[in-house]
This record gives sequence, C-alpha cells and structure tokens, in this order.
Amino acid sequence: MDFTKTKIELGKLIGEKKIIQKNDGTMDESLFNSYGTDRTKVYSPNYQVLVFPENTDDVAKVVSYAYQNGISIVPSGGRTGYAGGAVAKDEEIVISLSKMNQVLDFDPFLGTLQIQAGMITKNLHKEAEERGFYFPVDFAATGSSHIGGNIATNAGGVRVVRYGLIRDWVLGLTVVTGKGEVFRFNGEILKNNTGYDLKHLFIGSEGTLGIITEAVVKLTKPPKDIRVIFLAVPEYKNILEIFKETHNFDLPLLAFEFLTDYCLEKVKEHLGVPDPFQSPSKYYVLMEFEVNDETDEEKLYSILESITEKELIADGSIAQNSRQNETFWKYREGISESLSLAYTVHKNDISLPLRNMESFLDEMSALLSNQYQGFAIALFGHIGDGNLHLNIVKPKELSDSDFFKQCKQVDPDMFQLIQKYKGSISAEHGIGLLKKDYLGFSRSQGELDTMRAIKAAFDPKGILNPGKVL
Amino acid sequence: MDFTKTKIELGKLIGEKKIIQKNDGTMDESLFNSYGTDRTKVYSPNYQVLVFPENTDDVAKVVSYAYQNGISIVPSGGRTGYAGGAVAKDEEIVISLSKMNQVLDFDPFLGTLQIQAGMITKNLHKEAEERGFYFPVDFAATGSSHIGGNIATNAGGVRVVRYGLIRDWVLGLTVVTGKGEVFRFNGEILKNNTGYDLKHLFIGSEGTLGIITEAVVKLTKPPKDIRVIFLAVPEYKNILEIFKETHNFDLPLLAFEFLTDYCLEKVKEHLGVPDPFQSPSKYYVLMEFEVNDETDEEKLYSILESITEKELIADGSIAQNSRQNETFWKYREGISESLSLAYTVHKNDISLPLRNMESFLDEMSALLSNQYQGFAIALFGHIGDGNLHLNIVKPKELSDSDFFKQCKQVDPDMFQLIQKYKGSISAEHGIGLLKKDYLGFSRSQGELDTMRAIKAAFDPKGILNPGKVL
Repeated sequence: MDFTKTKIELGKLIGEKKIIQKNDGTMDESLFNSYGTDRTKVYSPNYQVLVFPENTDDVAKVVSYAYQNGISIVPSGGRTGYAGGAVAKDEEIVISLSKMNQVLDFDPFLGTLQIQAGMITKNLHKEAEERGFYFPVDFAATGSSHIGGNIATNAGGVRVVRYGLIRDWVLGLTVVTGKGEVFRFNGEILKNNTGYDLKHLFIGSEGTLGIITEAVVKLTKPPKDIRVIFLAVPEYKNILEIFKETHNFDLPLLAFEFLTDYCLEKVKEHLGVPDPFQSPSKYYVLMEFEVNDETDEEKLYSILESITEKELIADGSIAQNSRQNETFWKYREGISESLSLAYTVHKNDISLPLRNMESFLDEMSALLSNQYQGFAIALFGHIGDGNLHLNIVKPKELSDSDFFKQCKQVDPDMFQLIQKYKGSISAEHGIGLLKKDYLGFSRSQGELDTMRAIKAAFDPKGILNPGKVL
Repeated sequence: MDFTKTKIELGKLIGEKKIIQKNDGTMDESLFNSYGTDRTKVYSPNYQVLVFPENTDDVAKVVSYAYQNGISIVPSGGRTGYAGGAVAKDEEIVISLSKMNQVLDFDPFLGTLQIQAGMITKNLHKEAEERGFYFPVDFAATGSSHIGGNIATNAGGVRVVRYGLIRDWVLGLTVVTGKGEVFRFNGEILKNNTGYDLKHLFIGSEGTLGIITEAVVKLTKPPKDIRVIFLAVPEYKNILEIFKETHNFDLPLLAFEFLTDYCLEKVKEHLGVPDPFQSPSKYYVLMEFEVNDETDEEKLYSILESITEKELIADGSIAQNSRQNETFWKYREGISESLSLAYTVHKNDISLPLRNMESFLDEMSALLSNQYQGFAIALFGHIGDGNLHLNIVKPKELSDSDFFKQCKQVDPDMFQLIQKYKGSISAEHGIGLLKKDYLGFSRSQGELDTMRAIKAAFDPKGILNPGKVL
C-alpha cells in the first residue's frame, strides 16, 4: 500500500497537519508506535499512518475515505486497555481521538454534559466538579483513559456497586459507522421508545461497529463524605452474608471489595505496612459508605455491631478520618503493584454470580493443585459486583515462557468452570484480540452469528478494528 | 390457510390443550379476540389460532414451526399498550404468555428474581415484597401488564426520576428468535464485557426481534416512607429551577410531576375536589420524596423554605401523612380519567430536553391557535423525565371524525417541532402500528436501514410481530 499517497489524500480532506506518517520527521517513532497499542504488552504495533481528527466531521471524512479504498482503521483512545482492543498490528490507519477533548454543551437543569470522546476521564471529573456536579465512574486509569474508550469498553471501576457501569451514565452518543455515516443516538433525553436502542450496542463494542466521537453523559451530586470499614472475615460464606446485610442498608454502599490473606501478605511485604488486625484471617473485606451527618456515623457503628453479633467477622475497624480511609484502601489498591513488581502473574478478570463463587473457587483450586503444582492464586476484586481478579502467580522454579505456556492450557479449563457456574470470562476488560478465541465460553454460536450480522450492518467492509472481538 | 391443520400440528408439538382455535367451543369469541389486541382501540383483531405455552421450550417449538411454515406470530402479554404493538389483525398465530407466570429462581445475596415473562407486574411487586425486597417499576397498568411486555416496551412510570426505566432493572433475558432459536443473555451477573449487548436490543423492541420468555430482574430495598409536596408555580421557568434545586437534593426525589391550570380545572370538575390553594396558578408541581426519619422531615421544610425564599412558587404545602399524600396525588392521577370521560382527546406521549420545553410549548400553542382554532391543550406528565402527556382536547362544535382527521394533520407538524427541539415522538408508549409512519421524525434513514438489517438477523423471514415498529 502507498502510505504517502494515503497521507496526502487524507491531508486534502481534513488538513495535512492532522496526518502523520511514520518517520516523517514530525513525531518520535516510539511515541508514534504508542498510539497503535495498549497495556496488554502481548502485541506489537505495526502501522504507518496516524490521524488526529478535531471533530466528528473529520472522523466521518477519514472513515469514508477508508471505506471507499478498503483500508482498515483502528480507533485509538487512552490506550489503557488490557485486551489488545486498540492494537494496530496490520498496517491499519490509526485514528487518535486525543485532540477531540472539548466540552460541547452543558445542561444545568438535568445535569448533563456533552463532550467529545477524546476527553480524558479525569478531566471529565474536573469539568463536572467545576459545574457543581459529579461524574461517578472512577478507576485506576482515569488519568490517561478517554471517555470514548471507557464507553467503547463499558468501563466499571471501584464504585460499580453504587453507581453501576459507564453504560448507566451515557444518555446520548454520536458515532461514525464503517461506511463513514454519522449517527446521533438519543441526544439528551431520558425517555425515548422509538425503535431499537442502537446506543447500547455501541457501549462495549470495542470500536468494531463505529467510532464514538461525542457523548452526552449524566452527572449526579457528589457524596458528602465517605467512610471505610475494614473487616477480617474467617469464611467465604460470611462475605455473602455481610454483603446481604449492607448493600441494601440505609447508608449508600459505595464499594465492597475483598482480598485473601495471600494478597494481604504480598501488600505487607511490598509496601511495608503493618498487619491491619491482631490475628490473621483468611479473607478481608473493605466496605466504603457515603455519610452525610452524625446520624450516619452512628449507623456505621450499628452495621459493625450487627455483623459482629452475628459472628460474621473475626475483627473490624471503622476509619476515623479520610487519612484512615486511605490507609485501609492501600491494602486493596496495593495488590496489583505488589504482585506485578515482585512476581510474574497471569491476570484474569472474571465475574460470577456471588452465590456460585465459593464452589467455583473450590474447583479452581483443585484444578490447579492437581494439574499445575506450585501455582498460587492471588484473589481479590470488586466482590460486590461478583467481579474477581484471579491472578495466577508463577512458581519460582518455572521459567516465564514455561509458565505462560502452561497458563494457556489452564485458561480453557478455567473458562469451562466459569461457564459451568454461569459467569463471564471478561467482567470489565473486554475481548479485544486477547480473548477472542474464548468468546464461545460466554456466548452461544447463534449469538456469535448474530453479532457478525450486526457488525456487517454497521461495517459492511469490515474495516473497523479488524480482528477484535469477533 | 388451513388453521385446523395448524392447530392439530401445534397440538402435537406442545400438547393440544395449549392451542385454541377461534370458535372451537373452548373460549368465548370476545375473550378470544381480546388476546389479539391492546388498549389502542384503533385496530380490530383478526386471527384464528391462540397458543398458551408453559415454558421457553414450548415457545421455541411453536416459533420453529411457524418459521418452517412461514406463518406470522404476534406475542401477547397483558395487552395494556397504547401503540397497537400487540394487535393481530392479519391472521397471525397469537402466542399468549399468560400461563408463563412462575418464579424460577431467587438470589437473596444480590437480590435478584428469575421469572417467566408472563408474570403480571403487580405479582412481581408481591413476590419481591414477600422476600423483603422491592421492585420499583410502577405505573397505572401494573395490575394487568406482564413483565415481559414491560421489557419489550421499556416501560417507565411515575418513579423514573428516582429508579429509571425497566431497562435499568433487567439483568438477564431469555428470548426465542424468529428462527425458534433460544438465546440466554447474561444470566444473573452484573458485569459481562463479552461482545455486543444483545439484551439491550430486545428491551424496547416490541416483540419484533424475538419473544421474551424469561427475565432476571434486580430488586432493591423499599423506601421507608414517602412524603408529597404540592406546589403552585406561576411560571414555567420556575419549574426548571425547582427541579434543579430538588433532584440532586439530600433526600431521594421519587417523582416530579406537573400539570397546568387547565388540567386542575378538569380534575376539580370531574372529581369534585376543592382548590388545593387559595389563589389559582398557571402551573402545579407534585414532588414526592423518600423520608427515613425526623431529620428528613426537617429537610422537607428546608426545601419548601428555600424555593419560597427564591420566589419560585406562589404557594406550597407538605403532606402531613399518607392520606394527604394520596389527596395531592389525586390532582395528578385524576387527569386522564377526567379528560377521557368528559371530552374527546387526542393523546400524545412525547419527551423533550427540559430546557427546550418552554420554546416547544410556545410554538406548539401558536401552531394550534393559528391553524386549529378552538383546540385546547391539556398538558401534564413526568416533567422530571422531560416526559409530557400532551393531550389535544376536541372543541364542542367539532364532530369526532372531523376532530381526528384534523389531529392527523396536526401530528406531523407537532413531530417536526419535537424534532427541531431534539425530543422524541414516543417517550414511553413505543411505536407499534400507530406511530410507525412517523418514526423518521426520531430516527435517521441510516438508522432505520440498520434497524431493518438487525431485524433480519434475528428474524430472517420477518414472521415476528409483522408491521410493527419498522
């Protein structure tokens, strides 16, 4: 393919400053390459033309050109994904939304913001705050991730138990389909029963149906204050009972996280933090509540009292201030780093119905101890959402390559167990390139065929993010 | 077509007791006909074979048979719709879900119920309550409507401002496609990013993509107590300001309804209730809040104080008990009946961005007074959701048929205005047969084409609810 010709023709369409060709002297090669990959690390970028559109019209012109010329496209957001969803490895045109980061409109009555899809999530938080509102979808990567990418992967995060996924905060979407057509779904209205809801198809479609260029998001009021309770829990089944007691309690539950003793040990080793309780326990639960006044503070004690009386916990502690909130959160938020810096791990992001989780974990442990000796499981996550980060930790004596080879054998066995217990092989991270071969463990053949037909309806030449998801 | 043959063959597939042929001596003709129509009244049922499946497998067998033989099907729920979505007028097979009304599963931890789609909504409320939970989607027709029909039309109701639409309460769906294939979407998990969300396509699809046979719905905790505030508001723009003050207030706002002085007059005439306030006002607003304790009661007074100080209202009153709650609700809930019993009305169920509503209403009034003299507008609805019931009231001197003929001329003019102000021609009632010709005022040609392609993917022979929506 003649990439110089592509560059020149695209330049004529939307302005030559918006098009960069690899090694054309305007951008360092490693920076250029970074626009064609994500955090998965398994795939290498390989592409020649990078486009920085400034508005929906620019995107439509580029996609129309690509459609007419049969050239593939990879939409590029904040590139914080873990499934290879934003990798350009086959000389696709990369369309970066980075320059599309403006607020387009604000409705102070309903509390909505219309923004371009390339806005960094943290900046959306700021824009909401400056207007007296709150955008509640929050997670580790909000400093880099784009709101468009969040929507394309239906991002969740730490407060899903209270606020749901980003799907619940999207009122309207503007997208460019694989034919270069612009669709504007729903706008800024709450109620609209006029035919199929195509907006929801795009949420979580990982850039395979169209490029999300603008969004109208709902805002809410911020929680006045938050307080963390940290618990030592001796048995898994108690976690379920504690969740039952608390998630429909008077005080809004913002987060319900858990970790095992194994994870706690690793965090202590790595961060040098002390034991949170006098005696160790098998499980630890972190609950975060919204509090508004002194009455609410009293309610926190009544929760702790109630679960103590029912002998559901071995120990428990309420943070007395925001600094203590942070101290407790460290035990949960330090896990990923503690593991990845000191060990080689194979990450999994799965979900299961809460009530099936214990049986699944028992079978999963048996599977590993029978067939993969020395493999340890680091288990933690958003248990209130049924979302587990199941990390398999490499035994010291095994080489990295042997370990990952064996993990590739474990995966289908684990996915089969997940299927048996009615779970999902990808709770948050999506499918991308990484889990494409395993999609059949979560979706039936008939569903896959239907998804392909839907993809063809939006993207008849299959030029959008080829090879991802389906 | 040989309906007797169809009856016999379907009987062999799922049991002859489940199949009724018109006038076969087992069911009164008017009852039989009622299964093939809804509340729209514009269309007459005309069909011969009625099927009462008992489970998903029965439905799959009947649809497979229909698919093989090219026979069309109309799914029949509680038949409370207002858009002709459940009308069988062209000798389709009617599949009534009425016998599919069982609870299949309950998860006390997450708080979910798996039910068959033919369960009456009121019964779902009861089933939830018996288990210590609450299902919050509520509206006038819950005593007859089915949960499956609610989902197929994405029902809303009076507490959308707090709880959203039914879309927000559906975790999983089981559907039978137009080929007789059974798809089970998502099950009972909260997080599942594995390909396109087909579940959301079915919500609001009005039976044109498949028949919803089972659902997993989320439950929540019931509000402890509720209190109504009734307000007399002199100007439309004040309503916006009051909404801004209250919908992100400390107390959960359950409902935010409004009516005009014209509607209040009609309710007073019909129900013989007194004036709610000493002086009349142009608009009235009803707000309902959740209250938990005495502190919350005090907050009610602080709201009223705040909007009084800002001179947003002419008068206002807080209900002192549940009887007074009901008294205030009468002014809002009595409107439909007061109008339909004493007048001939042309109903519209539209939505608009709150901030565009006043301009829309000004233009709409001008349109009517210029071109349709004597037409009055009765305006009320869920204004917190931007959802207006815009009823045009027939002038006494006009005949019914002349009135409806003129309304048919008004409609496209009104829809054009709605389009201009970025609203929806159907907020809750759906499209069905009634608004099919006007769908283009809410969706673009490209979207309509894509919807048709999606319909073909699920229902390649077009046998499901033919003629509806698209």
